[in-house]
Amino acid sequence: MRTATGVTGASSCPFEATRTAGRATPRVTRVAASSDQAQVAVLGASGYTGAEITRLLALHPRINVRAITSERSAGQPFRKTFPHLRESFFKSDSADSVMNLELTKVEDVNWDQVDSVFCCLPHGTTQEIIAGLPRSKKVVDLSADFRLKDVDVYAKWYGAAHKAPDLQREAVYGLTEFKRKEVGSASLVANPGCYPTSIQLPLVPLLEKGLITAEDLIIDAKSGVSGAGRGAKQSNLYVEIAEGMNSYGITSHRHVPEVEQQLEEVAGGPVRVSFTPHLMPFSRGMQSTIYVKMADGVSVEDLRARLEERFEDEAFVHVLPAGEIPHTRFVRGSNHCVLGVYEDRLEGRAIIVSVIDNLVKGASGQAMQNMNLMLGLPEDTGLMQIPMFP
Amino acid sequence: MRTATGVTGASSCPFEATRTAGRATPRVTRVAASSDQAQVAVLGASGYTGAEITRLLALHPRINVRAITSERSAGQPFRKTFPHLRESFFKSDSADSVMNLELTKVEDVNWDQVDSVFCCLPHGTTQEIIAGLPRSKKVVDLSADFRLKDVDVYAKWYGAAHKAPDLQREAVYGLTEFKRKEVGSASLVANPGCYPTSIQLPLVPLLEKGLITAEDLIIDAKSGVSGAGRGAKQSNLYVEIAEGMNSYGITSHRHVPEVEQQLEEVAGGPVRVSFTPHLMPFSRGMQSTIYVKMADGVSVEDLRARLEERFEDEAFVHVLPAGEIPHTRFVRGSNHCVLGVYEDRLEGRAIIVSVIDNLVKGASGQAMQNMNLMLGLPEDTGLMQIPMFP
Amino acid sequence: MRTATGVTGASSCPFEATRTAGRATPRVTRVAASSDQAQVAVLGASGYTGAEITRLLALHPRINVRAITSERSAGQPFRKTFPHLRESFFKSDSADSVMNLELTKVEDVNWDQVDSVFCCLPHGTTQEIIAGLPRSKKVVDLSADFRLKDVDVYAKWYGAAHKAPDLQREAVYGLTEFKRKEVGSASLVANPGCYPTSIQLPLVPLLEKGLITAEDLIIDAKSGVSGAGRGAKQSNLYVEIAEGMNSYGITSHRHVPEVEQQLEEVAGGPVRVSFTPHLMPFSRGMQSTIYVKMADGVSVEDLRARLEERFEDEAFVHVLPAGEIPHTRFVRGSNHCVLGVYEDRLEGRAIIVSVIDNLVKGASGQAMQNMNLMLGLPEDTGLMQIPMFP
Amino acid sequence: MRTATGVTGASSCPFEATRTAGRATPRVTRVAASSDQAQVAVLGASGYTGAEITRLLALHPRINVRAITSERSAGQPFRKTFPHLRESFFKSDSADSVMNLELTKVEDVNWDQVDSVFCCLPHGTTQEIIAGLPRSKKVVDLSADFRLKDVDVYAKWYGAAHKAPDLQREAVYGLTEFKRKEVGSASLVANPGCYPTSIQLPLVPLLEKGLITAEDLIIDAKSGVSGAGRGAKQSNLYVEIAEGMNSYGITSHRHVPEVEQQLEEVAGGPVRVSFTPHLMPFSRGMQSTIYVKMADGVSVEDLRARLEERFEDEAFVHVLPAGEIPHTRFVRGSNHCVLGVYEDRLEGRAIIVSVIDNLVKGASGQAMQNMNLMLGLPEDTGLMQIPMFP
Repeated sequence: MRTATGVTGASSCPFEATRTAGRATPRVTRVAASSDQAQVAVLGASGYTGAEITRLLALHPRINVRAITSERSAGQPFRKTFPHLRESFFKSDSADSVMNLELTKVEDVNWDQVDSVFCCLPHGTTQEIIAGLPRSKKVVDLSADFRLKDVDVYAKWYGAAHKAPDLQREAVYGLTEFKRKEVGSASLVANPGCYPTSIQLPLVPLLEKGLITAEDLIIDAKSGVSGAGRGAKQSNLYVEIAEGMNSYGITSHRHVPEVEQQLEEVAGGPVRVSFTPHLMPFSRGMQSTIYVKMADGVSVEDLRARLEERFEDEAFVHVLPAGEIPHTRFVRGSNHCVLGVYEDRLEGRAIIVSVIDNLVKGASGQAMQNMNLMLGLPEDTGLMQIPMFP
Repeated sequence: MRTATGVTGASSCPFEATRTAGRATPRVTRVAASSDQAQVAVLGASGYTGAEITRLLALHPRINVRAITSERSAGQPFRKTFPHLRESFFKSDSADSVMNLELTKVEDVNWDQVDSVFCCLPHGTTQEIIAGLPRSKKVVDLSADFRLKDVDVYAKWYGAAHKAPDLQREAVYGLTEFKRKEVGSASLVANPGCYPTSIQLPLVPLLEKGLITAEDLIIDAKSGVSGAGRGAKQSNLYVEIAEGMNSYGITSHRHVPEVEQQLEEVAGGPVRVSFTPHLMPFSRGMQSTIYVKMADGVSVEDLRARLEERFEDEAFVHVLPAGEIPHTRFVRGSNHCVLGVYEDRLEGRAIIVSVIDNLVKGASGQAMQNMNLMLGLPEDTGLMQIPMFP
Repeated sequence: MRTATGVTGASSCPFEATRTAGRATPRVTRVAASSDQAQVAVLGASGYTGAEITRLLALHPRINVRAITSERSAGQPFRKTFPHLRESFFKSDSADSVMNLELTKVEDVNWDQVDSVFCCLPHGTTQEIIAGLPRSKKVVDLSADFRLKDVDVYAKWYGAAHKAPDLQREAVYGLTEFKRKEVGSASLVANPGCYPTSIQLPLVPLLEKGLITAEDLIIDAKSGVSGAGRGAKQSNLYVEIAEGMNSYGITSHRHVPEVEQQLEEVAGGPVRVSFTPHLMPFSRGMQSTIYVKMADGVSVEDLRARLEERFEDEAFVHVLPAGEIPHTRFVRGSNHCVLGVYEDRLEGRAIIVSVIDNLVKGASGQAMQNMNLMLGLPEDTGLMQIPMFP
Repeated sequence: MRTATGVTGASSCPFEATRTAGRATPRVTRVAASSDQAQVAVLGASGYTGAEITRLLALHPRINVRAITSERSAGQPFRKTFPHLRESFFKSDSADSVMNLELTKVEDVNWDQVDSVFCCLPHGTTQEIIAGLPRSKKVVDLSADFRLKDVDVYAKWYGAAHKAPDLQREAVYGLTEFKRKEVGSASLVANPGCYPTSIQLPLVPLLEKGLITAEDLIIDAKSGVSGAGRGAKQSNLYVEIAEGMNSYGITSHRHVPEVEQQLEEVAGGPVRVSFTPHLMPFSRGMQSTIYVKMADGVSVEDLRARLEERFEDEAFVHVLPAGEIPHTRFVRGSNHCVLGVYEDRLEGRAIIVSVIDNLVKGASGQAMQNMNLMLGLPEDTGLMQIPMFP
């Protein structure tokens, strides 16, 4: 029970209610600020996902941030780390609270004041820190630490044994559109990776219905460079990135086992994917171009119809009509995913394009979506940013 | 009286009320949607300022868009012109209305359904179209057509006699922070140019108090390329703009007479400015670096203190403490202006840096600010976007 | 015989001589300017490929440009069209000659002064203009007009019957590395498209030896926006392109039949490819990421070994060792192609990455390579630019 | 005497000879490779200026690189540091030699094999290392260490006493166009900073003739981010730089004393400048927009005429006709500087625009120009790259 913050239990999720109200495009009642505010800590707040959560909070009326941490910048005011964020920019009193805080070390957080946590720490260190938190806290973890169910798979891809296997078992994999119920009652949500989000949104509904085969899934993915984080690395300097592109981590990117695990869940058997990520000369945005083999007798129209039907009631996933092609610009700064499906010249094959903003639906936006569900709030609270173009 | 739309008279501007409430940073009561919606037309909606007004409307609860026009794209649905805007992206019912409309020609607007107008047409054609509108409509005009008071100055810089000199006399120059009262009771507001907005915000308070001289004002200004509009010009192609920069319109840019006219209003005598604009390889953002001569005995600290005092109660203008420097990234996507003041090595001189987003405070955001005042709404309704970084 | 200009016959190609000299990396004797200069016209010189040919000519000692044409800019000096090119920038007297010319219409070229032609005109109009030239001229055509051998395929993809079918039959498809001999004795060379160049360089040697199957060739290609030309189109404005990306022309791009035709030549049977191009936010550069199925018993190492062996003596094609990945930045501004071959997670499959500069090896550089062969000059004359990074 | 390497003495500089030959635009006889090669070391070769020197060497027939150093990357092959440079890309045998070398520490250079040095080390450490070299070596130093004549000024701006004051006195400040004779006979050349180069080229000839006043020189300068070096700093990440700009180092940039020192040399009295640098979202390129006060009776045409006359015989400095405006794109990748002069609206004032490529004329290109003079070679050997656009 969460009487302290007054948010209603996850069992009466108002978003679910709205969803069943029968509108093709669900609208959410505006949520007013109330005395029942969630008291949140943001761990690892000085990276790009931390900045993005703060931006989203500006339109969120029901979350108070009580603590923000950064190992490197502890002791600094937040706006030294993100000078584009200043107290005076915020209109909502709840979001404003972020700006009155100073960054601290994780160990200096007063957990009595906090009931929920966004964890934006690097993988590896995350698992120990979350294991050390009071179990009563609701946690959305943006790292990779709790995404892989199988500890052996984890050990293989991350080169070390998992340090909190119990928590790993308990964690809910939070691709919101597919795990709404589980997220609503979870204590610990493993927020999906950006690539896996863009890939699963179209593939899960198709595999689920057997419309495409689990073999020969070829994913050519492109990501903006903010996905590489804010650490000072030569390879991410402006001069090294601008006006060019490159593949990286061919066959060895750590999002591969996450994608395969989740697709196997619906395919009902082993899935292997070909996955080649590409680093793009832009800050935000992600596209997965996915080459699939259709099951016998299935047409491109069948694929599109299935996706349309599956996402008809979803606020954040949109299927384009035949002939229209998504751009990453269509979703920049928003929590939306836009999908397109196309004939291939190779018989029996189809091409799927999926675009998201890697920092929003691919990270902080989906984290907020999950947190809203965990707090019993409408799922899209604070997420009404429409895409920014230009 | 505006009983038709139910908005309150401009005389009881709620924003003014908030401003006097004594808080350093005014906060606005959230405005709920009501049955008293303004019914608005956006003329010339297919350019970048039109797209930006639509983006801002998504968070505005009190404006219904009833008509959108585009001479070239009439007959098309809006999302064909701006595919990043789709009905399903909008959460607020009022903004959503934009997406249900089809672009028409101006002559096909049903003026009975409209009480207010954002006019985003090119200068030259604007004056005739506005002159042809029913006089009862409230108009914010984003073109240059009504900014210059003196018809001779207009004729000289624009190469033709003004076609609506009566309206020109009546129009209020809407740099909101300096003209709040006049805007509140105006029928026609000439929305300031982007460069002039970034220049006047720091210079007006300083000239007003005689802290800087009206001579030797040297302005080196830099603008993102969205300021050049959405027309298909070779010189604005990606390949022509990326990875380089250039000055343009040296001494001959049409924002010069606008700046001089407005500075003369407070300087109490003739003002000439040196103004050199530069085209930058980015979409949004604007910086004016201004080199000023201080009056005898005045220090840089005096300048900063004056600006701090003048903008203390303003929601959208911010003065940085000594030693901090604004970046255009600090305001991207928001209606904010950030100012910094610095010592020069030349004795008696100071350097002022002013940054805005040219599409927001430099165009559509300020237009919304003005429209809010004209409608008797809190000035920052729909303008709570915080800067987007990354 | 070409005694007029004094270039030696194609039969004694000095480059071929060098190639057989047994060096792993062929070096070319520096070519000195001589009285035996080729007299060249550049038709359609005001686009990006025209600018690029001029840049390359600056280091070319044996070509004099006698005529440059542009339908739209006829009558202007060249540097009005390309102000980055000024007479005084050129060090070589031959290249310098370009800058002394004025753009004319094609019909005003004095053909008596010209023996060779770079044709950079848009497809469709090209075929008629080339058909109208004196047959004695050597022509490298950069358009698509003479690339497709089969007039029915041409008609299907270009929507009109070919107007010079005789010439089409005669034209040599000039992917230099594979057609050296034919190019050397050709009168009309159809310069390959940029995508097809990047695709054929790795695939032809592999298909030729049966190391990969002709089925299931999936090509995910990415191009810089200069490939879209210098025409003023809204969709290529800086604001529309920067900070984002998109697929386009899925399954319907006109480079598809060109690729299929050329692969069929070596595969000995019908070839269909899946080809999805993507528009990138950079000016120059192109990557094709190619997903191939290996023949039974073939390994990734076999593929790499074949490419290494095939390109060992080539000046412009380079195969990276295992584990290294090409970036488009590795070739910017140069005529080089860099290839990498990788294991796929899907059994029996491999991934090939091929990068070129779309304006150089993908257009003007390869055109120069072909012209050099036609003129009996060392193939890399004027092409010694090394990649520009940063 | 330099009989060891066979280059002729600086007293018979062939470039000077060409210059007096009376051509408006000097052309240089092509220099053929000979057995008389300079044997050069590049210290600090792993930064952007090191990469750029290597790029220029590819077209330089008379320099053999015998040693390249990097403290951090010692032991690595050069192409690991700059994978865009591979042995096989180089056509000239002399440049090729770079690629056969491995990076070492400075202390491991075999100085017996080397007669000349490009020093690209960071300032502060440079002075000690150069002081430790055998005095017979010819050195072009790209750091700031030997640019300031006055040790007190040095100490004030760099916060420490100079460690090689004797060498500092001896060093020649190498703004080539103004110091040709001194450079030709120098042992140690202090290569100018990028900003100072772009500023002095127009101002020195004007101050020299008293056409502008030494007061009220206001310089608003803009630099590409490659000027900030290749070190991994958060503030230079792509995400932090793209799509925005900012001023930095207002009044405190270390190029200020360098500019003032050099202008004083021709002004014949103390000079103070207002200097505000701006960081631009592009890799290469620099513009200084300079606001000057003309002497009594002097016109803008007088300024332009003076610059035209002064630079008439120069290969790398170009003055645009009235009405034309330089872009940084006009010089990208080349050693050129382009200048424009404009009326100001403020009476008695003028505006000067100066563009260079910060990595070429602002660093490695000018270093090569200086080295050529020191070696008795034509000044533009290896510098025939024309600007790369797109």
